[in-house]
Amino acid sequence: MVKLAIDMMGGDDAPQIVLDAVKKAVNDFSDLEIILFGDEAQCTIQHERVEVRHCTEEITMEDEPVRAIKRKKDSSMVKMAEAVKSGEAEGCVSAGNTGALMSAGLFIVGRIKGVERPALVVTLPTISGKGFVFMDVGANAEAKPEHLLQYAQLGHIYAQKIRGIEHPSVGLLNIGTEAAKGNSLTKKAYGLMAEQQVFKFAGNVEAKGLMQDVADVVVTDGYTGNMILKNLEGVAKSIGKMFKSTLLSSFKNKMAALILRKDLNQLMTKMDYAEYGGSVLLGLNGTVVKAHGSSSAKAFYSAIKQAKIAGEQRIVQTMKETVGAENE
Amino acid sequence: MVKLAIDMMGGDDAPQIVLDAVKKAVNDFSDLEIILFGDEAQCTIQHERVEVRHCTEEITMEDEPVRAIKRKKDSSMVKMAEAVKSGEAEGCVSAGNTGALMSAGLFIVGRIKGVERPALVVTLPTISGKGFVFMDVGANAEAKPEHLLQYAQLGHIYAQKIRGIEHPSVGLLNIGTEAAKGNSLTKKAYGLMAEQQVFKFAGNVEAKGLMQDVADVVVTDGYTGNMILKNLEGVAKSIGKMFKSTLLSSFKNKMAALILRKDLNQLMTKMDYAEYGGSVLLGLNGTVVKAHGSSSAKAFYSAIKQAKIAGEQRIVQTMKETVGAENE
Repeated sequence: MVKLAIDMMGGDDAPQIVLDAVKKAVNDFSDLEIILFGDEAQCTIQHERVEVRHCTEEITMEDEPVRAIKRKKDSSMVKMAEAVKSGEAEGCVSAGNTGALMSAGLFIVGRIKGVERPALVVTLPTISGKGFVFMDVGANAEAKPEHLLQYAQLGHIYAQKIRGIEHPSVGLLNIGTEAAKGNSLTKKAYGLMAEQQVFKFAGNVEAKGLMQDVADVVVTDGYTGNMILKNLEGVAKSIGKMFKSTLLSSFKNKMAALILRKDLNQLMTKMDYAEYGGSVLLGLNGTVVKAHGSSSAKAFYSAIKQAKIAGEQRIVQTMKETVGAENE
Repeated sequence: MVKLAIDMMGGDDAPQIVLDAVKKAVNDFSDLEIILFGDEAQCTIQHERVEVRHCTEEITMEDEPVRAIKRKKDSSMVKMAEAVKSGEAEGCVSAGNTGALMSAGLFIVGRIKGVERPALVVTLPTISGKGFVFMDVGANAEAKPEHLLQYAQLGHIYAQKIRGIEHPSVGLLNIGTEAAKGNSLTKKAYGLMAEQQVFKFAGNVEAKGLMQDVADVVVTDGYTGNMILKNLEGVAKSIGKMFKSTLLSSFKNKMAALILRKDLNQLMTKMDYAEYGGSVLLGLNGTVVKAHGSSSAKAFYSAIKQAKIAGEQRIVQTMKETVGAENE
């Protein structure tokens, strides 16, 4: 049995999509229990494995993250994080304010002792459909070489436990493949990764190869990672837009679009990284999953599933034993 | 009359594409003179405004940049750069080894006095077809806030003189639009740019908006810029590949592809940044244009045209007067 804490109030279409996703999840998994935090009056679920806890406040997208976590003590997000902190729940999922959720993770759930900087992880699509684990996508704007090494260790465990890859390769994102390439951060991080024996180091990988299965895990600092993530989103969206206007630009193109519609939709699904679940703040004393703010019920369901697998696989315990202070 | 020095031997398909481009350029522009550096025996041009200078060496893609520039004294690239240094030519164009060309620019052509770090500039496509000036895409892996400010000043002049935009807006690439976002580099650079009065500061711009005309010039450090450039290339190529395989996956899709072919090719052309010319190393005592290694004659021709406009517009003189030590 895995017990998860869930924020009913976070995200553009909350609570509806959260409720739909929770309903489906408890029906699909008989070994899943959920504590739902939010406005009781809006909750439409009655299920023996779903407990609703009423909260009088909610954190909005406009709230300043750290202040919101400190002041809105009876918000659904704070209460959810406290349930993980106390050990009552193994993990939590929210589609709310990303900064606030990261603060809740850091200040309420807390870091694993020995993990210096928890990192934000996403799984991104590749052409083959396999995807890769990418981190840090913005938990820390600045990083030291030792942090990148620790990200790599955390990402390696994540790829093994959540993505089921037995021996994941870990690459260092850089502006060239040779060891001497990059800035002082990547040069030093390369040295640290080349020395260690825990994971298979794939060396430097370039941004142009990211969608071509260059490595199972790709590590970078949070500034660069966030930049690349937003660039990927932006380019995919822009190309999609240009393409759509081409398809609608004439009658004959519209006919061709009709023929292609089903296959193009499949292609778009393959490119949509919400399909791979939410982003995860790794290195904490519990699993904290951020579902996209614009999540559909399906994407939120994926995020719940992800948190459930993390619980089953005891990923936090493994991190404590292999990366954290228990390892020393 | 503008005189340019051109490297006949650089690039995957040299000297053929170089010769084709030069022929077209001297025919199209009656006020253009060219000195062509390379193997005389391979030169097929006889034209009153094209002078061929024989060189016994050439720098290959495998050569280590700095060493190649120092040792291959009779290479076409070194001789070309020397012609700019001496003032004989106003600018130069090569499709050869990028690192070597940057070294030739720095060590032979030389920096404008007062410009601390010359930067590599490209023009990238946007959905509207307008495009934007992006820098530094890799001349310097590390940068200080003052360097970013100087890049902005150089890019501003470039957008005015080469792209003909009267009052170009300059944005700072960052991971959020608020002034306080980013790492210590971008936070300080933001302060410097917000203070100055020379150019219109568009504030922080995000990587997801790059293709949507967020600013006429976007400035970042060379590590991040190179990363974004390669990511753009990689994503566009990967999406293209996935799309192509969808179009070829069935008979009915192939029929639809036939209908769309012409419009899709137009779309690809709009996305191809080689159409906007080469990349330019800004801040030197002469214009140094790098045409893509895999340039077609058409792309090399664009790069020649770019160097010619830079010469006509006296861009180097303007940079000396407004950014360089002559300004102090």
